[in-house]
Amino acid sequence: RVNGDRLWDSLMDMAKIGPGIAGGNNRQTLTDSDAEGRSLFKTWCDEAGLTMGIDQMGTMFATRPGTDPDALPVYVGSHLDTQPTGGKYDGVLGVLSALEVVRTMNDLGIKTKHPIVVTNWTNEEGARFAPAMLASGVFAGVHSLDFAYNRKDPEGNLFGDELKRVGWLGDEEVGARKMHAYFEYHIEQGPILEAEDKQIGVVTHCQGLWWLEFTLTGKEAHTGSTPMNMRVNAGLAMARILEMVQGVAMGEQPGAVGGVGQVFFSPNSRNVLPGKAVFTVDIRSPDKAKLDRMRAKIEAEAPKICDALGVGCSVEAIGHFAPVTFDEKLVTSVRSAAERLGYTHMNLISGAGHDACWAAKVAPATMLMCPCVGGLSHNEAEEISKEWATAGADVLFHAVVETAEI
Amino acid sequence: RVNGDRLWDSLMDMAKIGPGIAGGNNRQTLTDSDAEGRSLFKTWCDEAGLTMGIDQMGTMFATRPGTDPDALPVYVGSHLDTQPTGGKYDGVLGVLSALEVVRTMNDLGIKTKHPIVVTNWTNEEGARFAPAMLASGVFAGVHSLDFAYNRKDPEGNLFGDELKRVGWLGDEEVGARKMHAYFEYHIEQGPILEAEDKQIGVVTHCQGLWWLEFTLTGKEAHTGSTPMNMRVNAGLAMARILEMVQGVAMGEQPGAVGGVGQVFFSPNSRNVLPGKAVFTVDIRSPDKAKLDRMRAKIEAEAPKICDALGVGCSVEAIGHFAPVTFDEKLVTSVRSAAERLGYTHMNLISGAGHDACWAAKVAPATMLMCPCVGGLSHNEAEEISKEWATAGADVLFHAVVETAEI
Ligand SMILES: NC(=O)NCCC(=O)O
Ligand SMILES: NC(=O)NCCC(=O)O
Repeated sequence: RVNGDRLWDSLMDMAKIGPGIAGGNNRQTLTDSDAEGRSLFKTWCDEAGLTMGIDQMGTMFATRPGTDPDALPVYVGSHLDTQPTGGKYDGVLGVLSALEVVRTMNDLGIKTKHPIVVTNWTNEEGARFAPAMLASGVFAGVHSLDFAYNRKDPEGNLFGDELKRVGWLGDEEVGARKMHAYFEYHIEQGPILEAEDKQIGVVTHCQGLWWLEFTLTGKEAHTGSTPMNMRVNAGLAMARILEMVQGVAMGEQPGAVGGVGQVFFSPNSRNVLPGKAVFTVDIRSPDKAKLDRMRAKIEAEAPKICDALGVGCSVEAIGHFAPVTFDEKLVTSVRSAAERLGYTHMNLISGAGHDACWAAKVAPATMLMCPCVGGLSHNEAEEISKEWATAGADVLFHAVVETAEI
Repeated sequence: RVNGDRLWDSLMDMAKIGPGIAGGNNRQTLTDSDAEGRSLFKTWCDEAGLTMGIDQMGTMFATRPGTDPDALPVYVGSHLDTQPTGGKYDGVLGVLSALEVVRTMNDLGIKTKHPIVVTNWTNEEGARFAPAMLASGVFAGVHSLDFAYNRKDPEGNLFGDELKRVGWLGDEEVGARKMHAYFEYHIEQGPILEAEDKQIGVVTHCQGLWWLEFTLTGKEAHTGSTPMNMRVNAGLAMARILEMVQGVAMGEQPGAVGGVGQVFFSPNSRNVLPGKAVFTVDIRSPDKAKLDRMRAKIEAEAPKICDALGVGCSVEAIGHFAPVTFDEKLVTSVRSAAERLGYTHMNLISGAGHDACWAAKVAPATMLMCPCVGGLSHNEAEEISKEWATAGADVLFHAVVETAEI
């Protein structure tokens, strides 16, 4: 079993870097705080005797050697970046539990045939630079390096420039590494495990996603002196599209979600009807047909809503992953480990996207999850217990060691 | 008649300061650009032989003496500040036409019994610091100086600090000046004069306004892993309130408008359901009963919309002025001047609020307007012709000289 206290202490130490305003974290990717978090993580990896490699996306790979020089490594990781008002565990638990796995192996003097690589993927959240899971996406060949470097944050900074600025641009070719297997341990970010009173989620699938960025073009005009019938109101069109998206998602229940988290009005002044409204619709489903049908409905309805108001409507798909089915053998190794250790468990479909979804494109991959209080995540109030964290890390330890072969 | 070319040249010179991104201006109140615009205006006032006084709100009063030491001055002005994506004429036309009136009087050697005071009110727009017409509001005793100094811009800067920082804090007590009359010339910012093919709008009334700032409290949560029935979606509630406001305004046609120009989601991240949505509803009507009924309807409906979604709803009235009826004698002086000069004219109700609305509380006041292309304002594409500008300045000249008595 792993050392749950040590894992928890590391989680709390990392949470001191890039503190939020309400007990959580704001350690967005490629900020100074992210750089500081990476340095701390590197120190811990050094202390555990791991060898650090950094690729051209800034992803960190910390290797514990195996006994067979020809055996491909087992990768275990997640991400250290957070949402602007994020929790202390989303991503971080996965990286530090991977570290705890090798620390425990060191304690017990366990040697494995396959090397173990503790991994911290860059920009999983996609909060600062869309899309999410950017570095793992480049790793899996879904995005080009050039595409990634040219992503812009809301201030117009380029991903590539920021990666250099914070000093974490590595020289390894992205995706050159080959994996024997990829494991990711994450908090559920949803309410199911807690409601069902289970300690471990054995993740069999991940639902697919579309991010549809709408740009609505109205006519900036004075809110006072522009009669109702002369308005070309991009804000009203946005409101109607939000309601429509809600209806589309409700029409596909169960097994679908849809909503909008980000909205920009322009010029965003109290007495100016918005000339422009930019916002991103986030729709998801584990069922590819349903997911694509939702997208088609939304893209069919939105222009009608806009036309009725004289508002221009353009839409760009700025994020996508198809639903993923994880590797059966690895899923079984997680389930058996939970069984063996006496932890309650159930199968789960991941509601969020994870780097494991892209890793699954190039290697056998899987995930496991622990509950989080109230299903709350992407919220500074995100919370888990030390017991929950430890149970998952135990299962991760067993599944990884089994897969890496003693 | 005034010198239309000189007026136009001054308008174009002022427009060079704080240029926008699309041919208009971004010279928001108490920015460095505003300070620069004020300096240019002061230079012109000095050249015209006027004596500058500055009050504790930064409002600029440039006096041309009268012949009777006991006669109260005739004030003529508007504002030099602009929206973030504002036009070159909104406000500026009124200040520079007032200047053109005294320049023309100088040219013609006209002496008046009453002094003339060319006036530039601070923060008319209310874009950076709500509410609009802030300095004239303090002048009229509607707001306290303390209230004004503590207004915050979106970055959290205080009005009082910014006024000091840009160097335009004066020492005159605000509102100590007494007015014989107040005239304001402005572009219509609406479509009526152009549609009716009239050169001059004789403004008889100004419609009243409420700014209702809503703060909706939902629950920040992951857009992917939060099932539809567990969402507490402040963004969806906002969308429904926008639609409701539209319905309330449409239900009060004609003679009412309602809309939303400014929206902030928090944390405003693509994969986070907004935990908070803050936005300002702008409703107006020339009919006080209608205006207050709209407010009551909106404040009754919004909590129901929010309750149905489990979203918290609070609302604060952050801006208000009642409908205004302008001084009959001054209105007549404007109408007669237009008549005398052979300009086509019609009565108009101002759709926008103006400093004249507050001045009307403490002195006989009135306004006149010229058309603007397509009724467009609060838009960088705001446009007027030199002929339109000149016609209004001619009328202003006649009405002011008549009121100031030769
Ligand atoms: N786990 C997580 O929050 N990933 C970010 C991508 C997503 O929105 O699903
Ligand atoms: N004229 C003008 O745009 N004033 C700003 C206050 C308002 O919104 O009416």
